Amino acid sequence: MNEDLEDVDIKRIAELLHTNEQRITGLFKRRTLHRTPAGHLILDRSVSQIEGGTAIFPWEKYEVVWGFPKIHRAMMLQPALLSHFTTERVAVEEKMNGYNTRVATINNRIVALTRGGHICPYTTEKAESLLPEKIFTDHPEWVLCGEMVGPDNPYVPKETYGIESLQFFLFDIREKKTGKPLTIRERRENAEKYGMQTTKLFGIYPLGVACKKIKEIIQMLGTSGREGVVIKDPEMQDPPLKYTSSQSNCNDLKYAFTYYHDYARSFFYSRVMREAFQSVEWKEGPAEIEARSAQLGENILKPMIQSIKKVQSGERLVENVKIRVKSIQTAEKFKKHLRTLGIDATFNKPVKIKDEYLIEIQKINQRTTDKTESILHGHTHS
Amino acid sequence: MNEDLEDVDIKRIAELLHTNEQRITGLFKRRTLHRTPAGHLILDRSVSQIEGGTAIFPWEKYEVVWGFPKIHRAMMLQPALLSHFTTERVAVEEKMNGYNTRVATINNRIVALTRGGHICPYTTEKAESLLPEKIFTDHPEWVLCGEMVGPDNPYVPKETYGIESLQFFLFDIREKKTGKPLTIRERRENAEKYGMQTTKLFGIYPLGVACKKIKEIIQMLGTSGREGVVIKDPEMQDPPLKYTSSQSNCNDLKYAFTYYHDYARSFFYSRVMREAFQSVEWKEGPAEIEARSAQLGENILKPMIQSIKKVQSGERLVENVKIRVKSIQTAEKFKKHLRTLGIDATFNKPVKIKDEYLIEIQKINQRTTDKTESILHGHTHS
Repeated sequence: MNEDLEDVDIKRIAELLHTNEQRITGLFKRRTLHRTPAGHLILDRSVSQIEGGTAIFPWEKYEVVWGFPKIHRAMMLQPALLSHFTTERVAVEEKMNGYNTRVATINNRIVALTRGGHICPYTTEKAESLLPEKIFTDHPEWVLCGEMVGPDNPYVPKETYGIESLQFFLFDIREKKTGKPLTIRERRENAEKYGMQTTKLFGIYPLGVACKKIKEIIQMLGTSGREGVVIKDPEMQDPPLKYTSSQSNCNDLKYAFTYYHDYARSFFYSRVMREAFQSVEWKEGPAEIEARSAQLGENILKPMIQSIKKVQSGERLVENVKIRVKSIQTAEKFKKHLRTLGIDATFNKPVKIKDEYLIEIQKINQRTTDKTESILHGHTHS
Repeated sequence: MNEDLEDVDIKRIAELLHTNEQRITGLFKRRTLHRTPAGHLILDRSVSQIEGGTAIFPWEKYEVVWGFPKIHRAMMLQPALLSHFTTERVAVEEKMNGYNTRVATINNRIVALTRGGHICPYTTEKAESLLPEKIFTDHPEWVLCGEMVGPDNPYVPKETYGIESLQFFLFDIREKKTGKPLTIRERRENAEKYGMQTTKLFGIYPLGVACKKIKEIIQMLGTSGREGVVIKDPEMQDPPLKYTSSQSNCNDLKYAFTYYHDYARSFFYSRVMREAFQSVEWKEGPAEIEARSAQLGENILKPMIQSIKKVQSGERLVENVKIRVKSIQTAEKFKKHLRTLGIDATFNKPVKIKDEYLIEIQKINQRTTDKTESILHGHTHS
């Protein structure tokens, strides 16, 4: 018998996930549902009706925070819009480049979850100061879904948005235990009422003109290095769709090829496909295709060359990120959290800035460093 | 019990492969060693001392044709040469762009094997007319390893070499039953004696200057669209190494991205790595890196765009290849052979040219066609 099972109430979990006990026992056995070091349970991947990243807190009354659903991507925008949406109008909101978090209260304490359902101690500390407590006491049944954006970001640090440290942008309010979303209007009204930042709404457009509008928005966003849009049914009945700028695709590639042996394989193919379909949909001529090809090639080759040269000169390949915390304890917990996620990192000494500590972190991309070194020493490929 | 085992002499096979009966039975059970539709046995992949592609002919006295060893690739040339070779001088020969075949006589009949060990009926017919029978009667213990090159090539058609139809270029003579190679000199002398074409020898260079020479050769080959070199110990004691031109890497990408959903994933990553290491090794400046990036980007994006447009206009994605045969029967057998290899193809009506039949073949890249169609119809990506 799995030790995870020993002190949990299978019947209660089955109830919360709207399924039967046998199924829950099966999920435990296959370790699809498992206990985290923090003590709560997470579902590793989606299983029929239950979203991956769903977290169960087996404390007192047992609570669940439903996983955030994967948003499908439009590859060819116009046909995707027409075949995906059943509504007449779509809301176009900004998709920001940070990391996804779900914030809720469990036993009257705020917890911020990663996409996978882990409690991130850093995000939790940030959520405590960035989010109004009142929304949680007024609506304990809600989970606030948002993007954590800015430079003091240990996952996806970005200077793009002019944010000083780290900011939370609300993009969804959902019911904790079902994942059911509020409408766009309800969410935006509540954001205003409680004084929360929310992702930019470009407009609500009739389906017939949305494609043209989105193209304009995407091109505008791209020129300032921003990621793209999420296209939503204003009533949130149809699931949303995402669509990104070419610059965002290229930035992903640049990142992936810097740490080519860690990330490039899984990143590459989908990004290139997006470029090709966007070019065809936008009916680009030879000069535009030429420019897009050059961009693509550069964002693949240059970061790789730079990484090889770094290793050649004796450096290790690391990603420099930073966090800014009120409590040193949060940093300690965050260190453990990264280890749980399988991320190898070294933490610099904290530097006190006003009432906070700035801590620089080096995330180590060992596989790419090792691979590069071995080739530089004459290793051949089979 | 596996039916492949029923009428074969396990003991004899174990003897031929220098191993024990138990191991052979195990290989059969795991289907690593299996019977082809032609009736002989092939080893799917290398297992410790036995090369993948090794073929056993369980007829009369039982014969074996040892698999052709995988040639490792230098990623960073200079350190690879120094760490790989134990000799003082290396021979640099051309690596031609066609397909690898091993030709031998089994029961006094010529058979031409693919890399994987299948008998290719087309290559066999070609080998019968292109190779001198006398070498097989003088040396029944030899297998002639060579590249089949030219436009009438159903696997890798190339106009590059100014060959009218299809030509065999000898690159190795090996002992059938062990795979042990003749020295470079022995091979070239025999090629001359029997009047066979052999791959070009650029020279035999001291290890200290080989890297510089190879760079010059690679650049020269690249400008005429040729593939690269194989670097060999003249005595053939150390295994050879291969190294290719940037143009060849880019051509591979162009091909792979034309049929992106069939090939791109597996092709891409290694090609891009080759480009990055070559650029670093050749100490390229910004302008050269720019040019290389542009080349790379173009060879990825343009073929994809072209394929998407083709499917958009209602075409199927096919590779047009052709064969030229003396006997219509060979074409029939070749059709079956392609089916065995899992290749979907349609054959046009044979056109008689002199004493031969030219047959155009469309190899169908169904996966890419289907994927493209579905996206054009609005399918989104999860």
